[in-house]
Amino acid sequence: MEGNQVKLEGRGITAARGFKGSGISCGLKNGKKDLAVIYSEPEARAAGVFTRNLVCAAPVKQCQANLANPIRLIVINSGNANACTGEQGRRDTWAMAEKSASGAGLDPSQVMVSSTGVIGVPLPMPKINTGIGTALENLNAGEQADLDVAKAIMTTDTRIKQSAYRCTTPMGDFHLGGVAKGSGMICPNMATMLAFLTTDVKIERSLLQELFTGAVNRSFNVITVDGDTSTNDTALILANGAQRQVEITENSDLLGAFKDVLERVCRELAYMIVEDGEGLTKVITLHIKGARDEESAHILSRSVLNSPLVKTAFYGEDANWGRILAALGYAGVDIDPEKVDIFIGPYQVAENGGSVPFDEKEMKKVLQERDISVLVNLKQGPAGLTAWGTDMSHEYISINSDYRS
Amino acid sequence: MEGNQVKLEGRGITAARGFKGSGISCGLKNGKKDLAVIYSEPEARAAGVFTRNLVCAAPVKQCQANLANPIRLIVINSGNANACTGEQGRRDTWAMAEKSASGAGLDPSQVMVSSTGVIGVPLPMPKINTGIGTALENLNAGEQADLDVAKAIMTTDTRIKQSAYRCTTPMGDFHLGGVAKGSGMICPNMATMLAFLTTDVKIERSLLQELFTGAVNRSFNVITVDGDTSTNDTALILANGAQRQVEITENSDLLGAFKDVLERVCRELAYMIVEDGEGLTKVITLHIKGARDEESAHILSRSVLNSPLVKTAFYGEDANWGRILAALGYAGVDIDPEKVDIFIGPYQVAENGGSVPFDEKEMKKVLQERDISVLVNLKQGPAGLTAWGTDMSHEYISINSDYRS
Repeated sequence: MEGNQVKLEGRGITAARGFKGSGISCGLKNGKKDLAVIYSEPEARAAGVFTRNLVCAAPVKQCQANLANPIRLIVINSGNANACTGEQGRRDTWAMAEKSASGAGLDPSQVMVSSTGVIGVPLPMPKINTGIGTALENLNAGEQADLDVAKAIMTTDTRIKQSAYRCTTPMGDFHLGGVAKGSGMICPNMATMLAFLTTDVKIERSLLQELFTGAVNRSFNVITVDGDTSTNDTALILANGAQRQVEITENSDLLGAFKDVLERVCRELAYMIVEDGEGLTKVITLHIKGARDEESAHILSRSVLNSPLVKTAFYGEDANWGRILAALGYAGVDIDPEKVDIFIGPYQVAENGGSVPFDEKEMKKVLQERDISVLVNLKQGPAGLTAWGTDMSHEYISINSDYRS
Repeated sequence: MEGNQVKLEGRGITAARGFKGSGISCGLKNGKKDLAVIYSEPEARAAGVFTRNLVCAAPVKQCQANLANPIRLIVINSGNANACTGEQGRRDTWAMAEKSASGAGLDPSQVMVSSTGVIGVPLPMPKINTGIGTALENLNAGEQADLDVAKAIMTTDTRIKQSAYRCTTPMGDFHLGGVAKGSGMICPNMATMLAFLTTDVKIERSLLQELFTGAVNRSFNVITVDGDTSTNDTALILANGAQRQVEITENSDLLGAFKDVLERVCRELAYMIVEDGEGLTKVITLHIKGARDEESAHILSRSVLNSPLVKTAFYGEDANWGRILAALGYAGVDIDPEKVDIFIGPYQVAENGGSVPFDEKEMKKVLQERDISVLVNLKQGPAGLTAWGTDMSHEYISINSDYRS
């Protein structure tokens, strides 16, 4: 059963019981909010998914090291990624955890640290330390706290990104909310996708990790703006059991409802990141059907959505299915090009790898929309996937060729 | 010994003895030259390297099928790639071989066919057939024939691309020349890199293939404009033994000289393709040093040179080494980011994965040049590689977002 799900408009990271947050300015981003804290009153189980880039920033390693601990606090700064900062970067990350722990009366092992912003510049620790104090004094729950956290983690984002649901079940209500940042990998050196989720269900850590990994694979991992993987990408979820009567287990009737809400929030946040993609004029929703397995559907979708030629064709409102087919062909997955069908919007443009005549005028209407859907049917097997990408515009080049300064 | 190598200015595909060529217009490209023939008087050994894209055009398959045969003729059309054209495409390719063979008094098995241009449109065979007749009537050797072939294989190229050398050895002279086209994968649907080389040495097919594969790996395979692999990419070499006293064998004293000239012509042609890249403002020469092996150096170089963020940073004349390091990190090769040194021009910008202060003014001068060299030292092993790429500009987006029509 799916439970009765209600979207909590205007809510995000503190929608679940027992969580508080705050977002303040400590001077990293010219007076804009740049430091956030997410706090759980009960000890929370944590699960996380991190960048696979070997160039991985110190805060990512700190989160990984503490992932199995009972967690009470996440501290996040924007404006500086603390990446490529060597030994000094490691010391600064651990100092952030210690400062936050002592301010909140916790052990440093109960704190996770996250950073996003410019690469290769040491953190200005005096500012950070003062900011942590201020943030801990301003902890709160509610719409304003949600908004403050959402703003404080932004870098080149043009919009805040949050989502939350309440789900009513026979065992009681539970809540799940989240906040994210990211819009490509990003203008002057600003990097990274970050996502933080909170929920008040009771759940074992290993099950939480399994469910979160699955949800991330079908949401944050199917979006691509430019194919570059950041040094700091982090998605974390905390489950604090504040609604202790709502327990999620492998065999629980509530498992389906929890999975559903979790995936929904992840997908909504992921879509918001794509939609805020750097210099995009169009969002491409790519449905892969008939693949051998989900893994190969995944590789194929990335190959198509990362192809500069496919992306520029959509920018030019050109139904250039040959570029889509070519990108499928070089993805490194065994497909039969002479079986591939391609649809753009409702219109078929290729059948069995060859061209299908279509009405150019009707197609023009489809391609002028901001949201364009593409269906690729490989006719090889039962697996499928829906992924999102963007076009590539003049604006993308402008944003990313700006000087670092 | 290297022999005495002389560059033959203004020469290309017919510089080697026993070869003739012609390039004419048959009406595929609005009156421009669009059909070329390369003819060898003696039977020639052939070697080839082809696209690894599974979406692979009929002419590529025809070349592969005939590769082991004694070859007398290559026929090439531009303006239409005969790709994604299904059964009709296959029939048309074989018909081109037959028409050429009957016109030249050969067997179709002695002919190779190559096509480049728009995808998904059937070849206009009456025009092609007439063109083949005209081309065969106009076979010639010399500067004009070289130029005609070079022009007839162009699509969006803005410059002709050819190179040839004479090498004097104690056994006599030999010649090696070549012609290429390509400038990214390309405005409205125009695809493909093509390269054709001819030489008059005597050599076994298997050795020729081995040497050619090596030379292609260190030339055409280290260039990248946008990372998209075409459906028609083809590099072919014919060795006709017209200078029969110059025999190249595994143990021959001449092996080094031949390898050297072969690689030199391949690299010159490859560089010309990069330099003619779509909408480029800069050519990036990337030296990878200290890699475990050549394969991993190759993967790392492609990851860096295909990164839209690296490419746009160079367009913006930004010494953004963090993006270079990040692209190394997600390449899928096991490296230690905290060992990596990076130089841009003569200036070090990163040491052991951390930043090194540099003079912004001096760096600005380096980045304003059209040719920029980047050195990455992984300090992991003995292998290295030099690869070429380009920046990514507003012009690239404009070219590639044009309508197909």
